[in-house]
Amino acid sequence: MNNLITEIEEAEALYLDLKTRQLKVDLTRGKPDESQLDLSSGLEGILQGQTIVDGVDIRNYGEPRGLDSCRELGAEILGCDKDYVLAGGNSSLNLMSQYISSLFFHGSGDGPWSSKERISFLCPVPGYDRHFRLSEEFGINMIPVELTGEGPDLESVRELVKQDQSIRGIWCVPKHSNPTGEIYSKEITEGLLKISKEAKQNFKIFWDNAYAIHDFKDSIPLEDIFSLAKDIDALDSIVAFASTSKMTYAGSGIGFLALSKFNLDLFLKHYLALIIGPDKVNQAKHVKFFKKNGGVISHMKKHAEILKPKFELVDSWLSKQDYGSWTKPTGGYFVSFTSEEGLAKEIINLASGLGLKLTPAGATFPYGVDPKDNIIRLAPTACNIKELDTAMEIFVCCVALATLRNH
Amino acid sequence: MNNLITEIEEAEALYLDLKTRQLKVDLTRGKPDESQLDLSSGLEGILQGQTIVDGVDIRNYGEPRGLDSCRELGAEILGCDKDYVLAGGNSSLNLMSQYISSLFFHGSGDGPWSSKERISFLCPVPGYDRHFRLSEEFGINMIPVELTGEGPDLESVRELVKQDQSIRGIWCVPKHSNPTGEIYSKEITEGLLKISKEAKQNFKIFWDNAYAIHDFKDSIPLEDIFSLAKDIDALDSIVAFASTSKMTYAGSGIGFLALSKFNLDLFLKHYLALIIGPDKVNQAKHVKFFKKNGGVISHMKKHAEILKPKFELVDSWLSKQDYGSWTKPTGGYFVSFTSEEGLAKEIINLASGLGLKLTPAGATFPYGVDPKDNIIRLAPTACNIKELDTAMEIFVCCVALATLRNH
Repeated sequence: MNNLITEIEEAEALYLDLKTRQLKVDLTRGKPDESQLDLSSGLEGILQGQTIVDGVDIRNYGEPRGLDSCRELGAEILGCDKDYVLAGGNSSLNLMSQYISSLFFHGSGDGPWSSKERISFLCPVPGYDRHFRLSEEFGINMIPVELTGEGPDLESVRELVKQDQSIRGIWCVPKHSNPTGEIYSKEITEGLLKISKEAKQNFKIFWDNAYAIHDFKDSIPLEDIFSLAKDIDALDSIVAFASTSKMTYAGSGIGFLALSKFNLDLFLKHYLALIIGPDKVNQAKHVKFFKKNGGVISHMKKHAEILKPKFELVDSWLSKQDYGSWTKPTGGYFVSFTSEEGLAKEIINLASGLGLKLTPAGATFPYGVDPKDNIIRLAPTACNIKELDTAMEIFVCCVALATLRNH
Repeated sequence: MNNLITEIEEAEALYLDLKTRQLKVDLTRGKPDESQLDLSSGLEGILQGQTIVDGVDIRNYGEPRGLDSCRELGAEILGCDKDYVLAGGNSSLNLMSQYISSLFFHGSGDGPWSSKERISFLCPVPGYDRHFRLSEEFGINMIPVELTGEGPDLESVRELVKQDQSIRGIWCVPKHSNPTGEIYSKEITEGLLKISKEAKQNFKIFWDNAYAIHDFKDSIPLEDIFSLAKDIDALDSIVAFASTSKMTYAGSGIGFLALSKFNLDLFLKHYLALIIGPDKVNQAKHVKFFKKNGGVISHMKKHAEILKPKFELVDSWLSKQDYGSWTKPTGGYFVSFTSEEGLAKEIINLASGLGLKLTPAGATFPYGVDPKDNIIRLAPTACNIKELDTAMEIFVCCVALATLRNH
């Protein structure tokens, strides 16, 4: 007990010391840093007056599914066949909203969702806050399911889908998942497809492959869900997304959607009423840029060189202390820290007192509620190494203080 | 009678003669031609490495309402105050769909539209096919109202809005209207605002100012609807749109939305769930481009130089013949031809037989139905002068043949 009191006093002393330093750091958002953005400076002016690409004038209307060569780029990123791919505007989130909107107004062969009493989605947790916000905005009821380290718990998914036919979708970030960093196994991917195929209701897998080729070291392959689906005749179960937001410029990249022919034809009816066509100039620039830079994998290696040391630094700070557990991602943008139960909010508050901004507690859960209050998402990419070092110094101090006080 | 037979025989001879020439021309779409697109070649590489604009890194996430300077550009085009303006992605049509989506899921202080039995829009006819397609896609019931040459017939609008409270909006293209070319008068604009203000239901004016500064000769001012609305405290009645699609590159420009503070706050709740933010790189390029080229009006004069001779050519061909009536627009992209009743489809079919593609009959009406079958939209911008000359030769031949046969 005396020992504990001493430890708390030491942690408090460190806390006060850090407070006098009046620091200001931010680990809230999975943004690329400036040096990553600089990697794509070659985009500027790359067309050098070229106006015809894939046989069309990229400056005029047309090609609502996107430039052929850009759809090929999307296929390369997603690791699927080009036929499935639509190349859109600057954001895959927008494509998600447009796809869900098409389901509300038309459905997918099962009548418009707007006519149903309730539409529910399974939400593997912790997950991507923007998926949850989008779902909430459309009035979709969200049901959390546990992640296992290689995808969602299949037994839970199977039972829930069987019991509740309002469940029409599941949000998946299959590679370097936000924020847990896990990669879906072949077994779980196949399992999800089988559940979808066997479900009485139309149950779709929203496959947001946002970090498809965002590996820190070697390229880590992910099973092509379309190939797996083809084998069991479940292609219509998949709604896949990707984007170049974390490859070139965040917010000025290209978003991709991949669908079976049946789904795509249904979707296009809605989509073509909402849009004039994508920005083909930007699409052409991206195609040319990656070609010039040895392809997407080669370009992503440059990102990895910047990102890897940051994730190593986070891990080294966390490894030096005794509390909680955390993920060791092999790619992506996040580390997920699990504290003792009931401490996440407290740790985030303590950190805020020292000038460290963290993603709000609960943000990675549907409706912003982390029932155990023990998940903290760390986003180490946006700041530089020095700032990150400071941030982690603050973080481990706050973890220690909150945990010791809890004992 | 003999005279008529001779005339028909002559027209048929000319028709057969044109047929042997195996022509192929297209007047269907309001697209800029290549020389117009060339006017904006300066966009390529214009940033010259500049990454910070209005104090933000344009390559990263953020600024969901758009770059400040780009919102200013939108305000200049729309002729309204910057505070109302949101600068979006590459298409105002997409902003229209997102705004309507926000009304379906939230409404505008009057509950979500999805909970109403019926939502109707007034559609001044002939009008823009994409407005009608978008409305149809959202299940909005469309009610046509007559255009007067300076906007929709106010008496009809007033009566309809009073009688049918499912009417929640009216589609307006207030300047160089598609396809009639008319410009809304101050009286009609004020009248619409008053009707909106006095309506029991929430009735909004969808003000698609697509051709705001697309004049052939001198700048023709349009009343600032926001100023008029402010005078009678009806700012919440307006949902305004504009875009640079026909100023720089079609499909790779910037779309704008302008709303009162009340409407904007409501809309942002929905919009921010659907998007990550606009393409700020493209926004910055547009701002810099227009600055460098003496402003938007100066740039639009170059377009006018290309467009004016085409519209003069159309008018000169039509003036040389005896049938129908047609508009004489002072800007925009279309001429609307009115044939004798019941002949539009026939003329378009005849033209098709000679290799001239025209906008399908009825396309400028809700549900594709022109009740009098007498409106034909001519879009003379996409082809060159020689092709246009051929197209008009075919057109007047087909008009004559169909009309004479009808007598």
